[in-house]
Amino acid sequence: MSRLDSFIRRLEAQRACLDLAAHLVRELDGDVLELGLGNGRTYDHLRQLFPDRKIYVCERRVAAHPDCVPPAELLLLGDMRDTLQTARDLLGGRVALAHLDPATGDVAASRALAAQVAPLIVPLLRPGGVLVSEPAIAWRGLSPMALPEGLTSGRYNLYRCVSCRS
Amino acid sequence: MSRLDSFIRRLEAQRACLDLAAHLVRELDGDVLELGLGNGRTYDHLRQLFPDRKIYVCERRVAAHPDCVPPAELLLLGDMRDTLQTARDLLGGRVALAHLDPATGDVAASRALAAQVAPLIVPLLRPGGVLVSEPAIAWRGLSPMALPEGLTSGRYNLYRCVSCRS
Repeated sequence: MSRLDSFIRRLEAQRACLDLAAHLVRELDGDVLELGLGNGRTYDHLRQLFPDRKIYVCERRVAAHPDCVPPAELLLLGDMRDTLQTARDLLGGRVALAHLDPATGDVAASRALAAQVAPLIVPLLRPGGVLVSEPAIAWRGLSPMALPEGLTSGRYNLYRCVSCRS
Repeated sequence: MSRLDSFIRRLEAQRACLDLAAHLVRELDGDVLELGLGNGRTYDHLRQLFPDRKIYVCERRVAAHPDCVPPAELLLLGDMRDTLQTARDLLGGRVALAHLDPATGDVAASRALAAQVAPLIVPLLRPGGVLVSEPAIAWRGLSPMALPEGLTSGRYNLYRCVSCRS
């Protein structure tokens, strides 16, 4: 399997998980939180899945396609390890779906970041909210969920917030 | 269709075209030419398709994944509008498959570059060689070929070199 193959497989897994997560939270009010904007492709997908919800976006420095830049009032600009702390007043317990995919290209670095931010994300989730994440996350209150059909375990990850007010 | 959807579709089209092109040149001796290395994903795919051929790579400045950096002797470093000129002695009429995908993110810029480099690529191709290109290219000696099944016309492009010594 080439890097092109595995990249395509990863994007397909990401999309399938986001689509399933959107279905899972369809009856749960709340905002959406995109952790990392990048070029804005996933943000654009979230916009289409959630045309009527606020989508907050954490990003250090916006470098997305001009069509995919979030409105300023929904941008949490800076290192997400800081901005997620300060977002707690704004978003605590209000997020129905969060998506974390640092995609640093460095597996160890992505995992380390995920471990740092998981405790900051979880208090923002509504009970019953869903976290979609590329690095696997082990954190109290998050319960792993079945992946979309056809996806091998661990390729992407879905968690349900079962007890999030830590 | 979101930008994520269209990106996945584009990568799938790219891979399908490269796979078909590899099949089409299986009985044609010659080198492979990758025009633009980027992160090296497509180069890695070409390596797997052509384990026994030399794969020359044009790149301005190597910034690929460390596993996907070509051997120095096969790297044509610099602006491809220059390096393709000087590569003519080395590669003229010897390339069985070339792949051009500037992927600048700017459609007009990619098309302009393709128009500039097409006259430099074509003399490098063997008669019967195949050019796989994301911007469509109109140039004498290049004959458009049918795409892999399922791909809409124009999503990616395949050309056979029918008279390449311009």
